[in-house]
Amino acid sequence: MERVEHYRKCICKLLTEECEKGAENTDIESQLIFDRERDRYLLLDIGWQDHERIYACFIHLDIKESKIWIQRNMTEVDIAEELVNMGIPKEDIIIGLLPPYQRPYTGYGTTGLATSA
Amino acid sequence: MERVEHYRKCICKLLTEECEKGAENTDIESQLIFDRERDRYLLLDIGWQDHERIYACFIHLDIKESKIWIQRNMTEVDIAEELVNMGIPKEDIIIGLLPPYQRPYTGYGTTGLATSA
Repeated sequence: MERVEHYRKCICKLLTEECEKGAENTDIESQLIFDRERDRYLLLDIGWQDHERIYACFIHLDIKESKIWIQRNMTEVDIAEELVNMGIPKEDIIIGLLPPYQRPYTGYGTTGLATSA
Repeated sequence: MERVEHYRKCICKLLTEECEKGAENTDIESQLIFDRERDRYLLLDIGWQDHERIYACFIHLDIKESKIWIQRNMTEVDIAEELVNMGIPKEDIIIGLLPPYQRPYTGYGTTGLATSA
């Protein structure tokens, strides 16, 4: 489980860095949300642009069965690549925001039995 | 802080109940996200409807300065009323999804000094 603890640290570091890049508009709050109990990690913007409500989740990563799932990424950062650069093996990264049938073509992990090693 | 601890319990109970009502579609996961460190609480749906990606945050509640902020509510449930029914005083509930200038007309809390008691 030391490996998964390392994954958690990488995720929190990546999201914290992305959050710090965030909105300069003071009416918009960039929120980090770390549910360490359920292994769910999000970055979102909440606030107002004039009278318009802003509510947008930019990044959402989960850890499920020792693999990192990229559930959402509305940034220009290639999160999977960033994770690989942090030393995480490609097969432990699932591009959850692509449909399951496309995942075998990504070079990243899949949830099929063949790659469960 | 016993009061805020009670608010946390009410929020988690409400979100857990809403989550249990959730999607019967097995390709869609209803996720509870509780960041107890930052006092941020969400309910969202993630998954697939055929080949279409589903990613929707239904409820988002925060606790800030001992008040509950309703940041998002895409359900038909009147969350503010539910919280009042759980014994939470109206002035401790901020309808964050309405613009600040509308909040004094809601009967619920505002962030102005006048209601900080």
